[in-house]
Amino acid sequence: MTSSLKIAIAGLGTVGGGVIKALEARKADLAARAGRGIDIVAVSARSSAKARGFAVKNWQQDPLALAKGDADVVVELIGGDEGVARHLVETALENGKHVVTANKALLAKHGERLALLAERKGVQLKFEAAVAGGIPIIEALRESLIAHGIDAVKGILNGTCNYILTEMESSGRSFAEVLKEAQAKGYAEADPTLDVGGGDTAHKLALLSSLAFGVAPDMSRMHIEGIEQITPADIHFASEFGFRIKLLGVARRTPAGILQGVYPAMVRARSPLANVDGAANGVVVDAGAAGPFFFSGRGAGEAPTASAVVSDLVEIARGSFTPVFGAPASQLARLTAAEAGTTQSAWYLRFEVLDVPGVLAEIAGRLSETGVSIESMIQRGRAPGEPVAIVMITHETSQHAVEHALKAIAASDKVRARPCMIPMEAA
Amino acid sequence: MTSSLKIAIAGLGTVGGGVIKALEARKADLAARAGRGIDIVAVSARSSAKARGFAVKNWQQDPLALAKGDADVVVELIGGDEGVARHLVETALENGKHVVTANKALLAKHGERLALLAERKGVQLKFEAAVAGGIPIIEALRESLIAHGIDAVKGILNGTCNYILTEMESSGRSFAEVLKEAQAKGYAEADPTLDVGGGDTAHKLALLSSLAFGVAPDMSRMHIEGIEQITPADIHFASEFGFRIKLLGVARRTPAGILQGVYPAMVRARSPLANVDGAANGVVVDAGAAGPFFFSGRGAGEAPTASAVVSDLVEIARGSFTPVFGAPASQLARLTAAEAGTTQSAWYLRFEVLDVPGVLAEIAGRLSETGVSIESMIQRGRAPGEPVAIVMITHETSQHAVEHALKAIAASDKVRARPCMIPMEAA
Repeated sequence: MTSSLKIAIAGLGTVGGGVIKALEARKADLAARAGRGIDIVAVSARSSAKARGFAVKNWQQDPLALAKGDADVVVELIGGDEGVARHLVETALENGKHVVTANKALLAKHGERLALLAERKGVQLKFEAAVAGGIPIIEALRESLIAHGIDAVKGILNGTCNYILTEMESSGRSFAEVLKEAQAKGYAEADPTLDVGGGDTAHKLALLSSLAFGVAPDMSRMHIEGIEQITPADIHFASEFGFRIKLLGVARRTPAGILQGVYPAMVRARSPLANVDGAANGVVVDAGAAGPFFFSGRGAGEAPTASAVVSDLVEIARGSFTPVFGAPASQLARLTAAEAGTTQSAWYLRFEVLDVPGVLAEIAGRLSETGVSIESMIQRGRAPGEPVAIVMITHETSQHAVEHALKAIAASDKVRARPCMIPMEAA
Repeated sequence: MTSSLKIAIAGLGTVGGGVIKALEARKADLAARAGRGIDIVAVSARSSAKARGFAVKNWQQDPLALAKGDADVVVELIGGDEGVARHLVETALENGKHVVTANKALLAKHGERLALLAERKGVQLKFEAAVAGGIPIIEALRESLIAHGIDAVKGILNGTCNYILTEMESSGRSFAEVLKEAQAKGYAEADPTLDVGGGDTAHKLALLSSLAFGVAPDMSRMHIEGIEQITPADIHFASEFGFRIKLLGVARRTPAGILQGVYPAMVRARSPLANVDGAANGVVVDAGAAGPFFFSGRGAGEAPTASAVVSDLVEIARGSFTPVFGAPASQLARLTAAEAGTTQSAWYLRFEVLDVPGVLAEIAGRLSETGVSIESMIQRGRAPGEPVAIVMITHETSQHAVEHALKAIAASDKVRARPCMIPMEAA
């Protein structure tokens, strides 16, 4: 019998605790699948004293000590794209240890360099838990859906945003109100910027894009937009048109290069992504001739994320070797980013206007000037003198053209607030 | 550079052709991911003369020759649970060659023995293409969703059945009519029994069940029912209750053992499985504390199935080693089958009755006698003297109790035809 796989865990929050519990509870079955036992030989966290609901053994005050001990694998669950997490991962790889991490920020920023280091040292760097929690999307893109190339990856990758949008829809409340409640319940962070501003989705998208297209992770020209500007009115109008609003990360191969963007989008009410509710995640992969595949499930939380970490550990225990981003790190191409403004799409547009003569003519005129044509429209009257919402769906047209028209329209004294534009995601 | 992986392909139908085309079209990328080239060193099929749209090289008249040549891997795409396919797979494994197959019938029947042989010989036996085409569900159950155990797997695993049910729903036509059209279009076989009777789904379910529960594949006590008895009226009533009818394969861990069944079921209209349309496949995995995960995509056809075969080949090229059914074959447990009749469920019941006084009282009385209580009911009048449909949804109750009542009801001279019962699948 092969000797057991020795692992060290840095970070004993929700996920770290989940990993320890799962390894303990399912010891025999996991050993059978791994071909050997998996033993925790060291742990480290900010405080050893905290009550955690499981016994903390082999405590190390200094997380960096884990990279120097006798562990075969270091599991990094500290987080953050610099500091201790980065130092720990680098040192562990330098010392010839495999690394399993849930740290999307670190990999989105330093993924290529870390992959080169891991592959040079002949060790594995695995990160199934970094994207979409328990959904095995990393494995799917790295090893399964590779025969026909990937045309696009589109995902709901942030549970906090999806929870907020779902609640806004079901309750009719504003973004601010729902966010506040989510924070009180512990579903959103005290500083929610990384989630609701789209940054977390962007990190995850960079990793999916790397795996899908054989490029080094690169966020430098990614268009990133959050859900802060979405109003209950937008959600309501979306539903009237047969759509729902979701925060998507989208990476797509185009003739001009790879287009990466994070933004709220309208998705058809019957499409798989539209039916990903609450804190769940969902990913569509357009796998060339093999067609679209859809994956959904819990994208965060103790058990789903621990599930992803454990599956990485079992693969390492079995001795499987896979390049970190599918293709060897030395062969990853530079990402040629397509200009975001060239995106062709139908658009949802919402204007808040004063109910005065000529306003619709002015808006329609401006749109027409830049070649934007209207497919359908809703106008709702309010009390006299109150602002009125005009909502339109355009025919397919470029983002540039719409933005150009909106700039002119926003300058009108008949238009209140910033006009809102949301792409209609095909399929 | 490691030498290339030499493969031999037996069977040059749709899937075999797709594999050859994908390996050719994406040679460089696949070699990067595999760490070496993948070369086809021999092929065999019923006829070498047939026009296939790709060049046939290294032809072998006798498929068994592939198991004796210099290939590292034999790809078996002949099909059938005995005969040439079985002989080829056995001989290849005996000769120390890896095997990749799409043959669910063979593995459902002889999987344990073949897995033992493969593991004894230290070679891989992989079958991602055998279940749900391009959806990487084998990989997900074998390697990804393992940390918290599996409670249940439920899937739409046969594209022909799902196509027929979808068409019946959209057109209101009968099973027989839609089947005939599907045959004319080449979507259904000349002898459709294996598909529409549930047998193909049963083969696939046995494999998923084995991976999920660590048992040897075993169909011996599986309840298998097809879609032949489903009428447009059932589909219509399902929709009135907010459900759709799908042919499911369901494997579930129960206190009495593992329950395996293939049957038409009512699924909630907004659930993921209900929205798997046409020839697509979809699978829900209840992964213990990690919650449910859902996978969908094209379950058959050239590109999706070739995608699965190619991903197996790349894993073999990389030297990865995984027990065939997740746990080593020698450690697979015997399946303890739960008695099908003990299933607790709500049920859809449809009776065709004569429109005469007392018929509803008689049905209600029989149901009440066996403890079956009714949650909702629809009765539709027809022309006088014509048979009338009475449709009921029961509260949760055992299959035995409902069957017992239905037997008594069927004996009544007021009831025409066999009453229909369909379980309501929770979630």
